[in-house]
Formats: sequence, structure tokens, C-alpha cells
Amino acid sequence: MSAVLAVDIGGTKLAAALVEPDGRVTAQDRAPTPNAPGVDGEELWRALEALLAKVAAGAGEPPLAGVGVGCGGPMTWPAAEVSPLNIPAWRGFPLRERLRARYPGLPVRIHNDAVCVAIGEHWLGAGRGHDNVLGMVVSTGVGGGLMLGGRLVNGASGNAGHIGHVIVEPGGPPCGCGGRGCLEAVARGPGLVAWAREQGWRPVGADATGVELTEDARRGDPVAGAAMRRAGRALGIAIASATHLCDLEVAAIGGGLSQAGRLLFDPLEEAFGEHARMEFARRLRIVPAELGQTAGLVGAAALVYAQDRYWSAG
Amino acid sequence: MSAVLAVDIGGTKLAAALVEPDGRVTAQDRAPTPNAPGVDGEELWRALEALLAKVAAGAGEPPLAGVGVGCGGPMTWPAAEVSPLNIPAWRGFPLRERLRARYPGLPVRIHNDAVCVAIGEHWLGAGRGHDNVLGMVVSTGVGGGLMLGGRLVNGASGNAGHIGHVIVEPGGPPCGCGGRGCLEAVARGPGLVAWAREQGWRPVGADATGVELTEDARRGDPVAGAAMRRAGRALGIAIASATHLCDLEVAAIGGGLSQAGRLLFDPLEEAFGEHARMEFARRLRIVPAELGQTAGLVGAAALVYAQDRYWSAG
Repeated sequence: MSAVLAVDIGGTKLAAALVEPDGRVTAQDRAPTPNAPGVDGEELWRALEALLAKVAAGAGEPPLAGVGVGCGGPMTWPAAEVSPLNIPAWRGFPLRERLRARYPGLPVRIHNDAVCVAIGEHWLGAGRGHDNVLGMVVSTGVGGGLMLGGRLVNGASGNAGHIGHVIVEPGGPPCGCGGRGCLEAVARGPGLVAWAREQGWRPVGADATGVELTEDARRGDPVAGAAMRRAGRALGIAIASATHLCDLEVAAIGGGLSQAGRLLFDPLEEAFGEHARMEFARRLRIVPAELGQTAGLVGAAALVYAQDRYWSAG
Repeated sequence: MSAVLAVDIGGTKLAAALVEPDGRVTAQDRAPTPNAPGVDGEELWRALEALLAKVAAGAGEPPLAGVGVGCGGPMTWPAAEVSPLNIPAWRGFPLRERLRARYPGLPVRIHNDAVCVAIGEHWLGAGRGHDNVLGMVVSTGVGGGLMLGGRLVNGASGNAGHIGHVIVEPGGPPCGCGGRGCLEAVARGPGLVAWAREQGWRPVGADATGVELTEDARRGDPVAGAAMRRAGRALGIAIASATHLCDLEVAAIGGGLSQAGRLLFDPLEEAFGEHARMEFARRLRIVPAELGQTAGLVGAAALVYAQDRYWSAG
């Protein structure tokens, strides 16, 4: 059986694996993203190339079925000239063109990393078997992907699924996108940490993260708990808006912050319940994602294996 | 050439027409909706039947191509057991079944009235030629319909397109849906009138409507102007959320309140511009609807004429 070479490109690490037609992930490997100030785009490309060569070597005799990639946005789509916000060395980097030259004759398909996570959850995770699914990643940022009628929604330019920029607090905190009051501005890990500090939270380390905030909330720290509540309610409001517009069956929530469990899901369900009252909206099931760290790789592979549902472009 | 018998069922009036394959509306007629307290569902049905018989008689020799209907929600879909909020006599009324019995052998297709308006604008109005379009009706309520990838989005239960229940003011004014802070709660005509009264607006008549409010705003009344601004900003925020999630090309705004023109569109564009900063979102064109009063009839006809795009059910 041949495999898909699946790739996940983030600001901290590059991950690659072989993914079998049944979604099984083998030969996974990773490398730090060369992302220090001054690193140039070609250096990053060479690091990626080396990682892919190493992982692809594990494929053995049968040829690869294709290359599927999730990469931080924004990017042009489907051409995938990528300019990931957290990888300054790549601005308009022709990732698809480079990979096509490196793997001639193979399908090479690239999409937003959060979209790939959502695809993974739809294909084989918390959303499988449902036609109308929102997959979300709540972490350093808040991203997502949208499946309607059983297929990935790309929108006009491949940018559909930006649930992190649904507005939950008009005139609220400034967002990295340039707007204000987006879900991401409120609920991203660093945003929560900053808010908690303003409210008097005093973490042990200087560079506290969402992980430490979650742990303190679990220990009963009232400010850390209030931060989780703030994030959960913002998520519930954004999901209510999304299902009113798109009439969803499942919202699957993954990413680091979703590890907070009930601390996040209780206020989420509370706010959702206050704002989503119509019968069709109340039927939405809001569940934790199931695939964990490999969701993005599995989804990237599905761009090749299940193109009828996840790849409408050329 | 045969025609589609197109029907629009609202709380105030019943409208019907013959619609030609090119969208031309002929033989249009209307009747008041028997909607006094105590009217029963059968009486309303008989009034509808009489109107349809009268209009269909105008079809002449070639048989009808089908029956397309827009009706106030909620309803089950596609079975169309309808329970229009503003028609208490119909609760679970089997409208599709009745029309099928009345017009045997013809396709009978029913959808939400705001969805039909959006379809009309997509088929032949402000959204034509674009694949990713939100059509909106801002009037006594705020409704809409969503086209993605060139096709109507139905969602899990035919309820996609409820842009009126995207949340623009969490914890804001109570909404008819049971939630709070929905776009409809803020921007519907009666909501604006109530808000303006609270702020000291003193209309001439006791039963002032959005029309009078719009006229006063045009004459420079500051409170009436502030009400328009309030509605416009709420619309801009909801549309920003919608395009972040769905990556739209065109948002077409119709309904009575859209007649306010710049009084509504200026604050709308201002709020949209503040909240939609990413390049893909800024490309959205927000335009007035083009078809006016006939949009719903044209869209109802398109359920039959253009089923590849607008009718995915049986």
C-alpha cells in the first residue's frame, strides 16, 4: 500500500509523517522550525526538504500517493504562496510550486493548518459521519474549518473557516487581524494570559502560558478560573453565531486550551445555551476533538485520499 | 412556454405569480392573509387555494412546470410542515403535502421566505454570477440565505442562513428567538422603533413603523438618525462575522429598512471596515438588493427552474 506524505508547518516545529489510506500515521518525525530573526526562506525550505526526505525514505518500495500539507495562514489558495504570520522568513513563498518540483508527478495539496485539523476531525475524528461540522483549534490562535453538505467549504479565496474572527465583543480588545473583539482576541492563550495578569494573576514564571493558566484554574485560582470562563463564554457565543448561520450538527474543539476540559466547556455551554435558543440550533453537539496532535497530519493526507470531499481545486 | 406558479406566504399578505424560465414575473396577484385571532388553518388554506387557482388560470394552455413557495419559518424541511411565527393558525401545517395533492404530478418545493429572497438575488439579482453570496432581508425581522460554491446551503435541517441570529451584542436586547443580542433583536424595524422611543423619539402617529423612523432620520432627527446608525453598525458587525466564517464575495441587502440608503449603509460600512481587516474579508462587496418586492417570488420559482443550485432535497 502506498502512503501520503503529510506535513504540518508551524512557527515552532515542522512535522511530517506517512499516512496510510485508513488514516493510520506512521514514520512520524519532526524538526524545529528555523525561525530565528534573520533566517532566510531558503534555509527554512532546506530544513523542510531534509525532514521530508527522511520521512519519505520510510515509505519503502511502493511510491507515494501524494503530498498533503497544512501550513499557517495566510496563503493564496490553491496556489499556496504562503505567508504564515508566525514565520516571517516566508512571505509569498511558493510552497506548492517547490513541492511539485521536488515530487514530480504527485498530487501536492496545501491548505490552512487549522482547516487540515478540521478535515482530520471530519474524516476520522469527532465529526465523522456528519455532513455539517465546524472543526476548531483553540491554542495560540483560534482557527477552524467548515464542512457543509459533507464537503469542505473553501469560500471565495480558500479562507472560509475563520471562526477565530467571528466577533464576540464589538469594540472589544484589538485582534492580530487588525480588527477588534474577535473570538481570537479574547480566547487565544496569550490573550487570556494577558487578561489574567491585568486582573492580578501572578504566575510563577515570567513567560507563563495558557498551560500554566489552566493548571492554576484547576487548582482553584479565582482569576485563572475567570479567564477560562471568559474564553469559554466567548467560544459559546461564536459557535451560536456559526450554527445560526450554517445549521451545524457538530462543533469539535481541539487545540491546547481545549485540554482545560470542564473549566472551558461549562461556561461555553452556558453561553451557547443563552444565545442559541431555536430548536435547530440547540441540536448542535459541541464535543472535544478526538485526534489530538495528529489531526493536522491526518487532515493533510485527506486532501489527497478524499479529494471528493476536501479538495475542490485543481 | 410553461411557467412556475410562485407563491410568497407572509403574515400580512399572500402573493402569487407565474414566473417564466427567464425570471419574468407575470399574472401577479395577492390577497390579505386571513390572520385574525380565531382564524383556523383550513380557512387560510382555502384563501391560498383560491388565490392560486386565480393566478394559475392565467397560465393558459401549456401546463405548469411546478410550484415554488417561500413561507415564513420555522418549518420542517424539505417536508415543509410549516409553523410561521406570524401566522398562528398554521402550526405544523402540511403545506407541501396539501400543494402536492392540489397539483398532482408537479414538483412542489418550499423554503423559508428569506431564503427564497436570497435565491432570487443570487439567480437574477445583485448576486448573480458570484458563487459565494449572502442575501439578506432587513424588515420586520432580519433573515437571509447563504450560497457557497455556487449552491444554496441548507445545513443540517434546512435552517442555514439565519444571519438575523448572529450575535452582535452579547447580553444585549432579548430576541424573539429566545436569545439575546442577535442582529434581529437590534436591527429589526420594530426593535429600532422601540429603541428610538426609549431615547425620546416622538413620532406623529401612535403606531410608528420603520418607514416613519427612516423618514425622520432623513429629515435630520438626531434620535432617528442614531437608530439607523445603530442598525447599520449591527449589520456591519454581523456581516463581518459571516464573511470571516464563509469567505463571501457579495452581501446583498434588501427589505424595507434597506430603503434608508446611505443612512443605513454608511454606518454599516464603517462598522464592517473596523471589524473586517483581513484582505480576503475586505474584498466583500456589500450592495443593495436589486429585485425589490418580487425577489421572493423569483427565488421560489428558481427552486424549480434551477434545482441543481437551489434544491438538493427530494
